[in-house]
Amino acid sequence: MKYLNQMEATNVDVELFNVYKFSVDQLMELAGLSCSHAVAKCFDVCKHSRVLVCCGPGNNGGDGLVCARHLSLMGYKPHIYYPKRTPNVLYENLMHQCKSMNIPLIEKCPEEKEVANCFDLIIDALFGFSFKPPVRSDFIPIIDVLQKTKIPIASVDIPSGWHVENGKSTDCDFEPTLLISLTAPKHCAKFFKGTYHYLGGRFVPPSLKEKYQLDLPDYPGTETCVKL
Amino acid sequence: MKYLNQMEATNVDVELFNVYKFSVDQLMELAGLSCSHAVAKCFDVCKHSRVLVCCGPGNNGGDGLVCARHLSLMGYKPHIYYPKRTPNVLYENLMHQCKSMNIPLIEKCPEEKEVANCFDLIIDALFGFSFKPPVRSDFIPIIDVLQKTKIPIASVDIPSGWHVENGKSTDCDFEPTLLISLTAPKHCAKFFKGTYHYLGGRFVPPSLKEKYQLDLPDYPGTETCVKL
Repeated sequence: MKYLNQMEATNVDVELFNVYKFSVDQLMELAGLSCSHAVAKCFDVCKHSRVLVCCGPGNNGGDGLVCARHLSLMGYKPHIYYPKRTPNVLYENLMHQCKSMNIPLIEKCPEEKEVANCFDLIIDALFGFSFKPPVRSDFIPIIDVLQKTKIPIASVDIPSGWHVENGKSTDCDFEPTLLISLTAPKHCAKFFKGTYHYLGGRFVPPSLKEKYQLDLPDYPGTETCVKL
Repeated sequence: MKYLNQMEATNVDVELFNVYKFSVDQLMELAGLSCSHAVAKCFDVCKHSRVLVCCGPGNNGGDGLVCARHLSLMGYKPHIYYPKRTPNVLYENLMHQCKSMNIPLIEKCPEEKEVANCFDLIIDALFGFSFKPPVRSDFIPIIDVLQKTKIPIASVDIPSGWHVENGKSTDCDFEPTLLISLTAPKHCAKFFKGTYHYLGGRFVPPSLKEKYQLDLPDYPGTETCVKL
């Protein structure tokens, strides 16, 4: 299977918006929905209902907000931690939708012990494929929690803080239990040693697949995600 | 189960946009996706791959364009008939996405015989809950095809030309095989006598459900639609 480097991932994204004329709203909705489905397939709602969704400042965080909303509609009890919000109508509306669905927002970074007591699962939607180290100071406390916690982590597209191509780095080496690659896996997914690897974001036009030689697996039936 | 009248359907829609701050892009993507899933559950891709998607000038037509794109990603061979396009960036982009995925556009209304020879299924996404009779002249030929055809029809939200509350009317009385009610069924769905009735559009916030006393069935697991 083809793994994208950072430049290819950026180019695929730009083409989806500029050439194929998708809106961010559309693709974020489909990406976040597929993440919520992958989570539901790996972590049963009866055993993992209490979910801490950690959202970063960019589109990865937006995917996390959409995922939180769909998890809530599927009976999970998500809480959102969203330390650094980018002023942007789309993200503000996504947050508003979550609030309107009574999804609580956690203002202060929870301590590792609190996370262990209050949650069954963490969604890591902090940084995506455009991340470049180092981790900014606002995110050091939550990255620290991700590194120390014993509860399972589901990472959206990239385990946050990992190098997009080289994988774990000296200052960030946690291992998620679930990785949901979006559109196509990035290089760092080769180094993923967790239990479940899914592909989500079932929206790639055949001609774009061909151009980037994305030999992606077929999604079965009506599934929005597929196990790799 | 609660059935919405035309005014309630309009109010629910307005609240989703104005109070809950969803964008049309988001909800149309989820609605169209759920329609494609309901279609795939009722009409196997091996036996019903050739699909004529008839799109109207409003949001119902937009749902149809989204549905066509997702059907194409699931292996169906949709063709779009879209006689009256509203100049609107969203619809233009949805059409562009379909064209970029090599979904053919049919310019002239196909005759009944041609439809019978070339297609296995028709998606009726002409008019939605804001339709008020009579049918405008641009749509009379395609409504005529829907009335005469023997191949199955899947209607999005409302069988087109039916009265939103009273059902069939004297100048439009075809019966779809599948009806996909979106958000909540409208009054006319009580008179539906076809084989399959699904509910799609899994995005209704609990507080909106409560306000309009929408006693909707639970969607199972990760499903985007549910059989009624």
